[in-house]
Amino acid sequence: MSHHTRIEHLGKPRVLIIGGGFAGIELAKSLRDVDVQVVLVDRQNYHTFQPLLYQVATAGVEADSIIHPFRKIFNGQDNFYFRMAEVEFIDTANRVVETSIGLIEYDYLVMATGATSNFFGDRAMEEKAISMKSLDDALTLRNTILKNFEQALQIEDDEQLNSLMDYVIVGGGATGVELAGALSELRKHVLPKDYRELNFKEMDIHLIQSGPALLKGMSAEASEKALKFLEDFGVNVWLNRRVKSYDGCTVTLDTGETLITRTLIWAAGVSGAPIKGIQKESILRGDRLKVDIYNRVSGYDNIFAIGDIAAMITEEYPFGHPMLAQPAIQQGEQLGKNLCNIFSGKPLEAFTYDDKGSMATVGRNRAVADLKIFKKEYKTQGFLAWLIWMFIHLISVVGFRNRLVVTVNWLWSYFTYDTGNRLIVGNKQENIPVEETISHKAVV
Amino acid sequence: MSHHTRIEHLGKPRVLIIGGGFAGIELAKSLRDVDVQVVLVDRQNYHTFQPLLYQVATAGVEADSIIHPFRKIFNGQDNFYFRMAEVEFIDTANRVVETSIGLIEYDYLVMATGATSNFFGDRAMEEKAISMKSLDDALTLRNTILKNFEQALQIEDDEQLNSLMDYVIVGGGATGVELAGALSELRKHVLPKDYRELNFKEMDIHLIQSGPALLKGMSAEASEKALKFLEDFGVNVWLNRRVKSYDGCTVTLDTGETLITRTLIWAAGVSGAPIKGIQKESILRGDRLKVDIYNRVSGYDNIFAIGDIAAMITEEYPFGHPMLAQPAIQQGEQLGKNLCNIFSGKPLEAFTYDDKGSMATVGRNRAVADLKIFKKEYKTQGFLAWLIWMFIHLISVVGFRNRLVVTVNWLWSYFTYDTGNRLIVGNKQENIPVEETISHKAVV
Repeated sequence: MSHHTRIEHLGKPRVLIIGGGFAGIELAKSLRDVDVQVVLVDRQNYHTFQPLLYQVATAGVEADSIIHPFRKIFNGQDNFYFRMAEVEFIDTANRVVETSIGLIEYDYLVMATGATSNFFGDRAMEEKAISMKSLDDALTLRNTILKNFEQALQIEDDEQLNSLMDYVIVGGGATGVELAGALSELRKHVLPKDYRELNFKEMDIHLIQSGPALLKGMSAEASEKALKFLEDFGVNVWLNRRVKSYDGCTVTLDTGETLITRTLIWAAGVSGAPIKGIQKESILRGDRLKVDIYNRVSGYDNIFAIGDIAAMITEEYPFGHPMLAQPAIQQGEQLGKNLCNIFSGKPLEAFTYDDKGSMATVGRNRAVADLKIFKKEYKTQGFLAWLIWMFIHLISVVGFRNRLVVTVNWLWSYFTYDTGNRLIVGNKQENIPVEETISHKAVV
Repeated sequence: MSHHTRIEHLGKPRVLIIGGGFAGIELAKSLRDVDVQVVLVDRQNYHTFQPLLYQVATAGVEADSIIHPFRKIFNGQDNFYFRMAEVEFIDTANRVVETSIGLIEYDYLVMATGATSNFFGDRAMEEKAISMKSLDDALTLRNTILKNFEQALQIEDDEQLNSLMDYVIVGGGATGVELAGALSELRKHVLPKDYRELNFKEMDIHLIQSGPALLKGMSAEASEKALKFLEDFGVNVWLNRRVKSYDGCTVTLDTGETLITRTLIWAAGVSGAPIKGIQKESILRGDRLKVDIYNRVSGYDNIFAIGDIAAMITEEYPFGHPMLAQPAIQQGEQLGKNLCNIFSGKPLEAFTYDDKGSMATVGRNRAVADLKIFKKEYKTQGFLAWLIWMFIHLISVVGFRNRLVVTVNWLWSYFTYDTGNRLIVGNKQENIPVEETISHKAVV
């Protein structure tokens, strides 16, 4: 495809942003009043609030309430143009990107493509595991969980039944911990009412963490308390284990132990999602792009990278910044300022990460938070942390209407111990039908 | 597949209900305190509130907020069992139905399978048109509308552009009128902000009605006012026309006139959705099942039909009752009573339809309502009718949480002239790619 995509030429510098995650939309917003043309390209027409994907997956909130159309976010921004397309190649010599809808020229290119699940080359795992990176992933998991229990009603064989009722989550970071907690709350409060015919003592939730502690990067207090909360909820936490293989039914750990499940959730390694055309020398381990302190991709003067895809190696962060919302947002904002500096011939300002801390929620009234406020550290676990977690996440969800809908959902489930969205909808990705792996027995 | 589905045998009469629409869930509820086993089979795990499908399709409300999981609706009902399955055949001699998950025995069978779009044998139409009967349909339409405008940005040729921006709705009943109204509100308040690069004077909305008036079955005042409201909104209403053919681009009317569109919405004929195994003599024109005044399918003493699939021919209703929510709900309730009468050896009571009137909304502040209250008729059009329409639909949506979410959406869009759910999500049914039918021109 060699035609050019139809986008008005404004005769102004064009900043082309690939990817509308936290970093991409923050940058686009920060260029609101700047005399440039901002073009955002994303394969979806909406921004996803990734921190709440796990709640979509566990039927806690509506899918629609954690995503927000780009065109709506930027309704009032005249210099903003959106194109829904997949970027296939970057022709850095000609300053043009090849996309599924044609060529798009740029003066400044910003890679904000985020991260993707890293299966370390294990194809079988990639095929059989469910990731937790996109809305599609979250809906796939929701549908899978609900279909599993619908199917379990038909199963007599104990091992087959366990394979449908048990869950293995790989990765003890925030997503893994939050998923394990949410699943155990479903097991306690919701599923036994929905499936009276099943015995939920048979439902096991396993969380596998490669290191000696959960929530790597958080304080020891937070890790320990999260572990205690999960154990109180009856989650089986396996520390110091890695998953060696998974064939769609048996999970084999590096210690030789095995677990049986038809649903393995991959909340472990992520890697950057670079696009072809960037020189090899600029791509670091984990497929992240090497950037300088101005988020400029090494080897280019008009290509930048922000968010998870960017690896800014500093003394304090020898492996780059943590792949979280906060560094992404702050880099987007800082790059906005620096682009202005470029346009007005001013010197660039180095990016410095203002770490505001991190938090994770395990379930009702139980969260852990390491906060940094004016450089002072505050650690709290339990009810207060949970209130803070809810407040921060609520105000961060994009769109006032979405915030209202999420609030309604949270209040509802808090007072009723019920989650409303137990719906098998739309997502066509099918599991291997049980018939193929499990022999039905005739029961009259 | 010949194994039996695993459902406890309670040693009580088993009432098997096929289909969880308005009729099916009303019947299941009415058997709450009766000493029977109620088994509901549906191909989805949720009940759909069909009257608001058009709002999902036009981005007005969240998909999840108009559907409700069966297991949640019947959480407290001990005699209720649900199975998610497709029913393939009814073996009336052996009192068993064949389903996608195995055989299910019954003592009493209730067909509540509703209606399906009737394309009168026109295969091309069936393939190219979008129906408005299920949540999948509504999401397909929402995705199609939004993708059309994303694609339109790339098109230069006027005819191709019009084919993407114009909409043809076939059928001037409530669904057609409501869709036309909602589309014209999108055109006025929402889309021009989202797609500044397109000229929305080019967007035409056509509504085609076979008869001389809209909203057949409602009063002349209602039809005329609905027509006026639509014309005020700039909808092109074509009365006394039928669609002769549609090839995915050109709509040909029986008058020879043609319209160009890539999106034809079929809100016209419906027919019953009977299941193989019922004797031919009991199936009437339009594939509805002939029932007596007790909703018993003719030729059987233990098979009943309620809702859209049932044709109860009476003097007042020579073609059966209107295929609407009210007759379905009332038949479900009455059949519940009559099954109790059967169990206790009492005589059956004839069904009589209590017509409470009907209504349709055209848009903000504009609706038409023909109400019957204590057998007195009240007709109203405009703001009051709109308030009544909203109130009735809000209280009818199943689930308190859903009502809250719908309320939030409605209040939000009323005050902001904005609809929030302009999201292209999950639904994989692709249109024919524009590339295949439209030749791109190279534009620099």
